[in-house]
Amino acid sequence: MSSESVSRVGLSMPRGFQVSGVACGIKSSGKPDVSLIVTEKPAVAAGVYTTNRVCAAPVILDRQRTPMEGFRAVVTNSGNANACTGEQGMLDSLAMTEMTARSCGISADQVLVMSTGIIGEHLDMKKIQAGISSAAENLGSGLDSLFAAADGILTTDLVRKVVSRTVELDGQEVTITGIAKGSGMIAPNMATMLGVIMTDARLSGSTAEKILQEVCESTFNAISVDGHTSTNDTVLLVASGAAQTAEISNADIPKFQSELEIVCSELAHAIVDDGEGATHVMEISVTGCGSEKDAMTIAKAIGASPLVKTAIAGADPNWGRIVSAAGYAGPTFDPIDVTLKVNGNILFEMGGPVPFDQAAVSNSMKSNRVICIDISFKEGDSSACFKTCDLTAEYVRINAEYHT
Amino acid sequence: MSSESVSRVGLSMPRGFQVSGVACGIKSSGKPDVSLIVTEKPAVAAGVYTTNRVCAAPVILDRQRTPMEGFRAVVTNSGNANACTGEQGMLDSLAMTEMTARSCGISADQVLVMSTGIIGEHLDMKKIQAGISSAAENLGSGLDSLFAAADGILTTDLVRKVVSRTVELDGQEVTITGIAKGSGMIAPNMATMLGVIMTDARLSGSTAEKILQEVCESTFNAISVDGHTSTNDTVLLVASGAAQTAEISNADIPKFQSELEIVCSELAHAIVDDGEGATHVMEISVTGCGSEKDAMTIAKAIGASPLVKTAIAGADPNWGRIVSAAGYAGPTFDPIDVTLKVNGNILFEMGGPVPFDQAAVSNSMKSNRVICIDISFKEGDSSACFKTCDLTAEYVRINAEYHT
Repeated sequence: MSSESVSRVGLSMPRGFQVSGVACGIKSSGKPDVSLIVTEKPAVAAGVYTTNRVCAAPVILDRQRTPMEGFRAVVTNSGNANACTGEQGMLDSLAMTEMTARSCGISADQVLVMSTGIIGEHLDMKKIQAGISSAAENLGSGLDSLFAAADGILTTDLVRKVVSRTVELDGQEVTITGIAKGSGMIAPNMATMLGVIMTDARLSGSTAEKILQEVCESTFNAISVDGHTSTNDTVLLVASGAAQTAEISNADIPKFQSELEIVCSELAHAIVDDGEGATHVMEISVTGCGSEKDAMTIAKAIGASPLVKTAIAGADPNWGRIVSAAGYAGPTFDPIDVTLKVNGNILFEMGGPVPFDQAAVSNSMKSNRVICIDISFKEGDSSACFKTCDLTAEYVRINAEYHT
Repeated sequence: MSSESVSRVGLSMPRGFQVSGVACGIKSSGKPDVSLIVTEKPAVAAGVYTTNRVCAAPVILDRQRTPMEGFRAVVTNSGNANACTGEQGMLDSLAMTEMTARSCGISADQVLVMSTGIIGEHLDMKKIQAGISSAAENLGSGLDSLFAAADGILTTDLVRKVVSRTVELDGQEVTITGIAKGSGMIAPNMATMLGVIMTDARLSGSTAEKILQEVCESTFNAISVDGHTSTNDTVLLVASGAAQTAEISNADIPKFQSELEIVCSELAHAIVDDGEGATHVMEISVTGCGSEKDAMTIAKAIGASPLVKTAIAGADPNWGRIVSAAGYAGPTFDPIDVTLKVNGNILFEMGGPVPFDQAAVSNSMKSNRVICIDISFKEGDSSACFKTCDLTAEYVRINAEYHT
């Protein structure tokens, strides 16, 4: 379900949302650093969050508040993650909900918060106040507003990340539109993944949460840039219900979930594609395992190996590094049963390498941004797919040459 | 127990060993590629091996044969790992034991084999035969022979790795001398760690195996260059008994084991120090955990993070990356209890950063090859130490720019 294999519909805003993005000076670059998403009426919001034990104040706050059925707004600042900031950090996150409530005429407990950027520094609350006021004044429901909101959550991302899909539910067309940010670094910081998926479908809080968790497993939780889980990762699903449908029926959930998965999968792909220093996206498909967990364990071991990631960067069809990464991943298998393909070319079979045209395979790796690594076993019928980017000297330069 | 904190005794050969190293043309560089270690009488040999499910023929063979009480020789070739070579690979490893037996006048089942280098290619057995014959003719017990044997197992290592220690047992001075190789890459290959520890102490096979396993846990199994476990890792302990002591008493085992641990620890340190592209050694010490396993899990997560490794390469005291890596490692802890020191400077305490002189800490990181990362928790009394090297653009260059 890569972005290449799915035809995109035109981008559009779901009904019932007003959004904006403004610059308030947290980022020294002057780029947008406050993003505001407001629903016209109380909506449903669900969230999934970082599993890092060292997590930021906004994550702690949102986790307490979702699933939420009286949601009205989420405010995001980029440039400062408000992580490792102690009690003051939590007071600042709460203050952001209050500022948003006052500016939008809603209640503070209807507001969620996300932050991304530098960690260990307190927010400049004067700038935040000015940014939230300005964002509230600039709310709109056009594509320009959507793009401004999408830009306001980026850090050093090179590309804006917005995806829309539509699906017919209860005789009405409903829209699912998501924005996300990927890996970036501002000062002493780590990659942080944020996303908000807006829809005008009508969902209960518990349904929204269940669907979002399931979809994240196969999309945002199945990607990596460098394997370093951030303190701030947050994905929110906000359902305004403004399409005027009945609450989603059990029969319609799979149809909605399938489109939601495409939105999240395309955003996830965009994050990997925009990974720091990335020159290739690696799509690692593992089949024939005893369980999905085993398949994902092997896929992640291959995708985490710096030797595999540097080989892909060098367009080197280095089957030995891939097969041996599977070998140390943990799950049991017989090497004699392994078949490995790279971009469709069989490189390894029956416990040993297969003669292949190395120059041709290397050229196919050079000329394709997406490298397909397919490895199969004979332990069962379970499979998994994991996406990551390659490891380049540029990644090292970005992360080593910055000094605090 | 780093090489800095331990005074080295002069290098010496244990009694009862004859060793050699020669070049037979497997490596195109003309450097030594066959190493032979022979005991004058039947000796005891124990081994620890890679846990990779895709393992090389010599690993399968040696694993079947150790612990071995009638050991006479180990033959090693570098330049070709004899991995992923199927049945022919196993026949070639067996042929190496037979060639060694004929050349040395011993029995083939008294011989162990190690290989390191390119994977997926068959050995050139004519060259191997010539190399083994020549190695047998050149056996000696002087330091020149020891260095030749140590050189014969290297691949792209920049530095020869030999360590000696002595200990008094049963009124006799016994010697423990180890050789090892670290990470290197020749053609489509991955880092492979090999080591042989020779001693003239008298040990039973079961004692040798037990001691070696315990020592490896805290030495060779507590290091990493890039986290990619090879198909060929092997460490052998060979005890000739030629010091004419009684078999080691239970009371003397800790004394011997302690010196063995120093030998293995110094060799392990040398491997990390000579890691591909390394400019720093990271010594990660984790204390105050609920179990040793938890402590090692956290240490390994910190040591595996490319964001931490690139920060160290850039002499960046980036406490956020280190603390957040601990946060996603898995073990439970309260961030408020975490204290982090880098080169003795407290950077993080009580859930937040501590003001520190960033330029001074960065300078201490620039001017020290070894970077000490000490992180403590309040979950218990258990601790662990893990060593790795930093991640530099040179590592990426070495592993990306080579094309098969």
